[in-house]
Amino acid sequence: MAAMTRPQAVEGSVGVVPTEYIDLPEPLALDCRRGLHPVRIAYETYGTLTPERDNVILVCHALSGDAHAAGWSATPMEESALDGFGADERDIAKKSGLGWWDGMIGPGKAFDTNRYFVVATNLIGGCRGSTGPSSLNPATGKPYGLDFPTLTVADMVRAERALLRVLGIEKLLAVSGGSLGGMQAMEWATLFPESVASIIPIASTAALDPQGVAWNAIARSAIMADPDWQGGRYYGTGRAPNAGMAVARMVGHVTYLSGYSMAEKFGRRLRGRDDLSFTVTEPDFEVESYLRHQGEKFVRRFDANTYLYFSRALSYFDLARQYGEGSLERAVGVFQAATLLICFSSDWLYPPSNSRALANALEANGKNVELHVIEAPYGHDSFLLEEARQTPMIRDFLSRVYQSRRESRRF
Amino acid sequence: MAAMTRPQAVEGSVGVVPTEYIDLPEPLALDCRRGLHPVRIAYETYGTLTPERDNVILVCHALSGDAHAAGWSATPMEESALDGFGADERDIAKKSGLGWWDGMIGPGKAFDTNRYFVVATNLIGGCRGSTGPSSLNPATGKPYGLDFPTLTVADMVRAERALLRVLGIEKLLAVSGGSLGGMQAMEWATLFPESVASIIPIASTAALDPQGVAWNAIARSAIMADPDWQGGRYYGTGRAPNAGMAVARMVGHVTYLSGYSMAEKFGRRLRGRDDLSFTVTEPDFEVESYLRHQGEKFVRRFDANTYLYFSRALSYFDLARQYGEGSLERAVGVFQAATLLICFSSDWLYPPSNSRALANALEANGKNVELHVIEAPYGHDSFLLEEARQTPMIRDFLSRVYQSRRESRRF
Repeated sequence: MAAMTRPQAVEGSVGVVPTEYIDLPEPLALDCRRGLHPVRIAYETYGTLTPERDNVILVCHALSGDAHAAGWSATPMEESALDGFGADERDIAKKSGLGWWDGMIGPGKAFDTNRYFVVATNLIGGCRGSTGPSSLNPATGKPYGLDFPTLTVADMVRAERALLRVLGIEKLLAVSGGSLGGMQAMEWATLFPESVASIIPIASTAALDPQGVAWNAIARSAIMADPDWQGGRYYGTGRAPNAGMAVARMVGHVTYLSGYSMAEKFGRRLRGRDDLSFTVTEPDFEVESYLRHQGEKFVRRFDANTYLYFSRALSYFDLARQYGEGSLERAVGVFQAATLLICFSSDWLYPPSNSRALANALEANGKNVELHVIEAPYGHDSFLLEEARQTPMIRDFLSRVYQSRRESRRF
Repeated sequence: MAAMTRPQAVEGSVGVVPTEYIDLPEPLALDCRRGLHPVRIAYETYGTLTPERDNVILVCHALSGDAHAAGWSATPMEESALDGFGADERDIAKKSGLGWWDGMIGPGKAFDTNRYFVVATNLIGGCRGSTGPSSLNPATGKPYGLDFPTLTVADMVRAERALLRVLGIEKLLAVSGGSLGGMQAMEWATLFPESVASIIPIASTAALDPQGVAWNAIARSAIMADPDWQGGRYYGTGRAPNAGMAVARMVGHVTYLSGYSMAEKFGRRLRGRDDLSFTVTEPDFEVESYLRHQGEKFVRRFDANTYLYFSRALSYFDLARQYGEGSLERAVGVFQAATLLICFSSDWLYPPSNSRALANALEANGKNVELHVIEAPYGHDSFLLEEARQTPMIRDFLSRVYQSRRESRRF
């Protein structure tokens, strides 16, 4: 493996960060009425815990994320894994050693590691260090596959809480994340209202719209339609449902962008040719080539069964059904957390109207809620792109919450 | 086969209609610089041709249509093909004996068969009677598969023109269709400006947006990712890429609806159960079950290779690139047809802005163009649903065109 140059002390960076692992001391009770044991959770931390343990922010990842949210990974992508990449792509792939929310977490950033202690975990069900369908099932000695229990966002949150308790952390200053990460923040405020002072769900929703449920179902269908999926028992067979996964990823990718951003980024430009190929198989258009590449890249780093489980949890999540007998207003009546909602005007997968509905439900309960709709043309992906505009909103909100929490303890 | 009751003389219906077939007398020269021969075209006609042959309207189908646009098919779906359907579904399947635009074509309807002679064909490349990838390749004696030449919308229009000439028809009063059908109408006005008095493209565009190109590429990827596709040589193997086709159809289906219509039709209701299944494989939600059913139903009536070819032609179509060196205004400078454009406010696949761009390009050339944006919440599918509101627009437009054409000849 060639040596890779990594910055050790870049301004605004948390530097090189190791991923750590903890095995939960107790079996985890799940919504499906099964238990999970053993449970290993991969996590990273950034910043310093105060003696009062009052500065903890939990950052939750979305469908394809992991525990490596900020800084450079201490276990970066191996050179050998870069075979087949072009020069530019090698560069991008190497940069994937950088955490998925590095622009938001670090000294002086939105989640300021000079003040706060940030914890990021890989979700249970995951494939990046936490126990998931590719882990060994102790009952059989083989990977779980589809014997892995079906998870809910509440299960994921219970696992996060169990991990934090092992770390000696009982109370959270904030829980934040985009998309599925935002759902975890909402679930925290509902399940453990006394444990969380604030939540910051970004580009998220209290329940996916039926169209979002449909896209997820299509993605799962594409994976399960691939014969190499083998009913989920593909581990160790030398075959994996890469073709189906690539289709699933392409569907997801288009839903994360906006029509405008695709027009701006690709237009109808042809890729590497002056005229049409007059074939049905070739990727003639840049957008076709881009999507194909995204699909192929994804299968190298993500487990298909994990995709199925996360996608299912996303579709199941429904605060109103779970806690309000169908009423979102009733469901959020238990919230004690101050809530900052951020969403993006062009996000058609997690539309601003859903954030507004949640804000209205909280306001109807007299809760402390703040909603920002950022005018941005790049669709759902804006939550990863519009760091500069989110930063002051989050920084100010966190300052106020932290201040008021410290003051309230003084009296 | 059980006897099926079919109305012979229902008011507003063209009655029972046979599909007819014609073999073109000459090889067809294609944009890919190959020729196609022999070429058989399936077609139907409704109404009566005037002695002057001046009342012909060509109706063009979209991605999944065929020549059976109106009335009851003389070769309806066999009872045996209905095995596996439930009671309600048998009913719907039987009704599929009705033409795909029956609500618009017939005595007193938008395309009034008391006045006009309507011709509908199955596109070349098709799988419903016209020569396509499942037809025998005379060079090999086997089905073409991917040896079938890649088609453009212009090729399809040339084939339609060749068929009409065999029928003794040189001039068209109008060409109309939705989606891909609307593209054919535009192509007619550009390729053969002197042969067409008017066009009525509905829910269509002069070029698919990059997002539409992406959806089509994903659908094709899903089909080609299915090992049963076998590089397109699946005919006679007893295996066909049904799983991939189903995924392709599901993707298409969601793009034809709107978020609103999915919320209204399905919401987040569970299907036939009170609680979640806690599996990743079951279709828990009504919308999941509906999509799965749509996918499964489609593979019974449509050929996967035809889907690839039609999808490719859709993506290739680009009036500005083909005829205007990138300028739509320049491309439509040759139009002589009066143009009626109809589109739908919630159609995000063929958005009203695209129809507006075409209208503007025509107006900049001083052409006769009329644009109606119908406020309708049901997305692209509105063109098949909103018959009542389209009818007066089309009827009045056609009356005026027919009147002025007859008058102009008189002087």
